[in-house]
Amino acid sequence: MHRFAFTVAYDGTRYQGFQIQRTGQTIQGELEAALRRLTGESIRVAGAGRTDAGVHAVGQVAACAIRRPWSVVDLQRALNAVLPPDIAVSEMVQAPEGFHPRFSAGSRLYRYRIWNALVRSPTERLYSLHVARPLDVAAMNVAGQVLVGEHDFATFGSPVGRSPSTVRCVHRAEWVREGCRVWFDVEANAFLRRMVRGLAGTLLLVGQGRLAPAEVGERLAARARSQAGPSAPAHGLWLIKVTYPPLVWEGGPGLGDK
Amino acid sequence: MHRFAFTVAYDGTRYQGFQIQRTGQTIQGELEAALRRLTGESIRVAGAGRTDAGVHAVGQVAACAIRRPWSVVDLQRALNAVLPPDIAVSEMVQAPEGFHPRFSAGSRLYRYRIWNALVRSPTERLYSLHVARPLDVAAMNVAGQVLVGEHDFATFGSPVGRSPSTVRCVHRAEWVREGCRVWFDVEANAFLRRMVRGLAGTLLLVGQGRLAPAEVGERLAARARSQAGPSAPAHGLWLIKVTYPPLVWEGGPGLGDK
Repeated sequence: MHRFAFTVAYDGTRYQGFQIQRTGQTIQGELEAALRRLTGESIRVAGAGRTDAGVHAVGQVAACAIRRPWSVVDLQRALNAVLPPDIAVSEMVQAPEGFHPRFSAGSRLYRYRIWNALVRSPTERLYSLHVARPLDVAAMNVAGQVLVGEHDFATFGSPVGRSPSTVRCVHRAEWVREGCRVWFDVEANAFLRRMVRGLAGTLLLVGQGRLAPAEVGERLAARARSQAGPSAPAHGLWLIKVTYPPLVWEGGPGLGDK
Repeated sequence: MHRFAFTVAYDGTRYQGFQIQRTGQTIQGELEAALRRLTGESIRVAGAGRTDAGVHAVGQVAACAIRRPWSVVDLQRALNAVLPPDIAVSEMVQAPEGFHPRFSAGSRLYRYRIWNALVRSPTERLYSLHVARPLDVAAMNVAGQVLVGEHDFATFGSPVGRSPSTVRCVHRAEWVREGCRVWFDVEANAFLRRMVRGLAGTLLLVGQGRLAPAEVGERLAARARSQAGPSAPAHGLWLIKVTYPPLVWEGGPGLGDK
């Protein structure tokens, strides 16, 4: 078998998320259909993170194994030729032995994007949350610092897969403003289901003066879903980058660098 | 009559351009329908520039006259509540006596956006032209300087309205690169029909080494449509800003500043 790892960018607007569902179109479904069309084989695609319906990505990482040999250049070009225009394979490498996009990953970086102006932006409407009230980015950054480090994030999300653990290690949680554009970059070893949207929704309460920065620590300590703010909508969320430990990636220069 | 001038932002993807057409949805049509719904009056909306089908705007300027008095705050809010999500009124002022968004305008700034990378960007696909080949931005800037000043631009577009003149004054023509994003800012007193797309298409030939920068001046001097490069597609084009002389705008602080 020939194993490939690749970076996938997509506009999540018309998809039910990354992972195949019983009904509706998914990124995994489109990738598997494209590979079937190219190879005639029934090929399973694994992804680094299951993004929710409507979530976008520039740096999702996926992998697959193919019976017939392909050069990475040919496979990438062929996939981009048959994939729909709202999905693209931006990088491709031969995957190292034993590589799994999810289990081998060292960290994930998500970005939550906000259009912070009185009036909505027509061209940002599918890619950023519109927040009309002014946001206090400094207060949101104070609150965000409480999240950095290893914590039980049960307040902000639910476990993924078989492990019941809700402990995750957040490396970075940072809000940035550039004019009307405000975004939240959050990087962690891994995330719980809905965790970024839960964090963004809670910190948005802080930014609007509806929650004191210090209360975020109390809510985190409570370890109860009821303590989170409203989950921020999916369309503002972007999976930016998945990082792998160098040893896993000896064979994969540049993967995930976009 | 109460006259209003306002800035309009729109995602042009699903519209047949600004100006009302016999068939298909237009920005002007949506604005007039919204005003009819709010006022019960049949109100004509005039725009500063007729953008082609698929062209976007952050700073289109429009004006209308309404029989009943409205505050600018109320009218802007009411319009945004009834307009579709891909159109928004971002600013509104009382229009000065005799103001016409097109005839009073001093200059227009358009931006042509390009995604310059081997692989397309799913989230830029509706808002930037994808160019896979590397672009020589320095060469495009050399060629762009030839266009600055008062020239007969008959090569690059056709006359608008009743005047047969194809002479226009370009104040600025500048290419910028930021990573994979490349854009062309061009400001002029006014533009011919299709002129920005003609200029962008011709300068793209220069950027790809298919036309020497010096040849752009020869093509300009030829004053023949056949001398232009292929017209760049509409979806990369944005109307950024319309500027009015200060005297016209005594009553309109900030209009067109976004």
